[in-house]
Amino acid sequence: MSKQRRFKVALIQMACAADPEENLHVAISRVQEAAGAGAAVICLPELFRSQYFCQREDAAAFDLAEPVPGPTTAALGKVAEKAGVVVIAPLFERRAAGLYHNSAAILDSAGEIVGLYRKMHIPDDPAYYEKFYFAPGDRGFPAFATKVGCLGVLICWDQWYPEAARLVALEGASVIFYPTAIGWHPEEKERFGAAQRDAWCTVQRGHAIANGVYVAAINRVGHEKLVGAPGQGIEFWGSSFLSDPFGVVLAEAAVDREEILFGEIDLDRIEEVRRNWPFLRDRLIDAYTKLDQRFLDQM
Amino acid sequence: MSKQRRFKVALIQMACAADPEENLHVAISRVQEAAGAGAAVICLPELFRSQYFCQREDAAAFDLAEPVPGPTTAALGKVAEKAGVVVIAPLFERRAAGLYHNSAAILDSAGEIVGLYRKMHIPDDPAYYEKFYFAPGDRGFPAFATKVGCLGVLICWDQWYPEAARLVALEGASVIFYPTAIGWHPEEKERFGAAQRDAWCTVQRGHAIANGVYVAAINRVGHEKLVGAPGQGIEFWGSSFLSDPFGVVLAEAAVDREEILFGEIDLDRIEEVRRNWPFLRDRLIDAYTKLDQRFLDQM
Repeated sequence: MSKQRRFKVALIQMACAADPEENLHVAISRVQEAAGAGAAVICLPELFRSQYFCQREDAAAFDLAEPVPGPTTAALGKVAEKAGVVVIAPLFERRAAGLYHNSAAILDSAGEIVGLYRKMHIPDDPAYYEKFYFAPGDRGFPAFATKVGCLGVLICWDQWYPEAARLVALEGASVIFYPTAIGWHPEEKERFGAAQRDAWCTVQRGHAIANGVYVAAINRVGHEKLVGAPGQGIEFWGSSFLSDPFGVVLAEAAVDREEILFGEIDLDRIEEVRRNWPFLRDRLIDAYTKLDQRFLDQM
Repeated sequence: MSKQRRFKVALIQMACAADPEENLHVAISRVQEAAGAGAAVICLPELFRSQYFCQREDAAAFDLAEPVPGPTTAALGKVAEKAGVVVIAPLFERRAAGLYHNSAAILDSAGEIVGLYRKMHIPDDPAYYEKFYFAPGDRGFPAFATKVGCLGVLICWDQWYPEAARLVALEGASVIFYPTAIGWHPEEKERFGAAQRDAWCTVQRGHAIANGVYVAAINRVGHEKLVGAPGQGIEFWGSSFLSDPFGVVLAEAAVDREEILFGEIDLDRIEEVRRNWPFLRDRLIDAYTKLDQRFLDQM
């Protein structure tokens, strides 16, 4: 673990084009730009190499998947090494024939893969048909040792689950990164849009507060309407943000444009918040056993 | 369980005087007023019968405790029966010599005690010396069947723990009531006050969102400076509120004055939110076993 008490993070809020190569080139260029501006940890959005193909169930989309190690980790590993930064690279992982994950590789400043998170909570909702594509991970909720200390990575739907944030915090993470692909159904946006975006931000700030950790959400932007997908596509709402360990939003990106969002992690701030709000001290670990139940009815 | 799909709740935000009898009389009068205005469930603040004696450690304060059943449940049970309402009555419970709890009795419309929650998470921080006074409960996180359906009751410090909210939601609660006594240290208010109150509200709205339940926080108001307590006392910040199951604040009380806050619970809204944001469906119950660990280091 590093003795560095402060470091800069960069959240790459980007739009994703139809061509995976183009997205990789954009990502590399943004990572280099962020590193040049002093970021030590740089995180890309969920599945940034493609448009959000889960808008429909199409077996041909499995062609987009790649192994780990593979092309994305090789390309971004080189960038990480050259710039001396940590890169969090979400990707569509092919683990075996018929077995795919929604994953994120953690590339350390030596260019090596120091960790792989496989998304645990998999949604299945109109235009977010992820259960068709992804098996849940089977490694739980780890945190990853990097040159700036212990980092957590969870992905999108995980962000609604306090259990996931808690477990990553108990593993010692100082920041939880949430690469994301979330947006509005255009036909619902006027009626429900503001409340949806607010709930998404609030629940994650709640994780920051309950656990005394920084939380970083990294979303894509742009309206993607795919051939064969129902409805009017998805208008990804951007709004990437960094929350401090007491839920204070330190930086927030726009709803509708690409942006590199910078923020500073200060480990002394975690120390200060947890000393004054010592929630970890008072967890009643013997009283939580029923959390492994689906529901507590009598049936 | 009732077939009633909508009912009104009332949150009694009150100031607490030095005289316990006076506080009981005020509480009775407010409960009657709230019932007259149509509330079906009425909740009082934590330890409303006294000033917040936990500002210092004083064995004489145990004189304030009472058994359950006891004077407070008898008096409010009568009011509940006469008005045909459910009353949530927090009290300082004497269970045995040397064994006290920070509790809340749930009084149903027949005037009977249908449930007793004993605060599980007990704080101990400057001017909140609760570990001196209260043993943690030993009945876990139940929900209580009432004439308007299944209600959850947690108390104050519990509100920072996602585990508690989740367990009560899994028990089937439609609303989680949080009787509370939280405020500012006057000497810290200018610098930290806004962030503290915001974190308190945010983490509870987060529980509403993560669980698809209504959340009601009921706080006291007033500046209480007790003889023998250090510092400048506590300025209780009021701000009682009702959040809907997607984190939308439906009603919010003032910071500095007594108020009866009304709001409506609509069970169809819970149904709607959970259908569209089906977090309970995708909990990974086999992956949460480590939540019963204090920390996941290797020592």
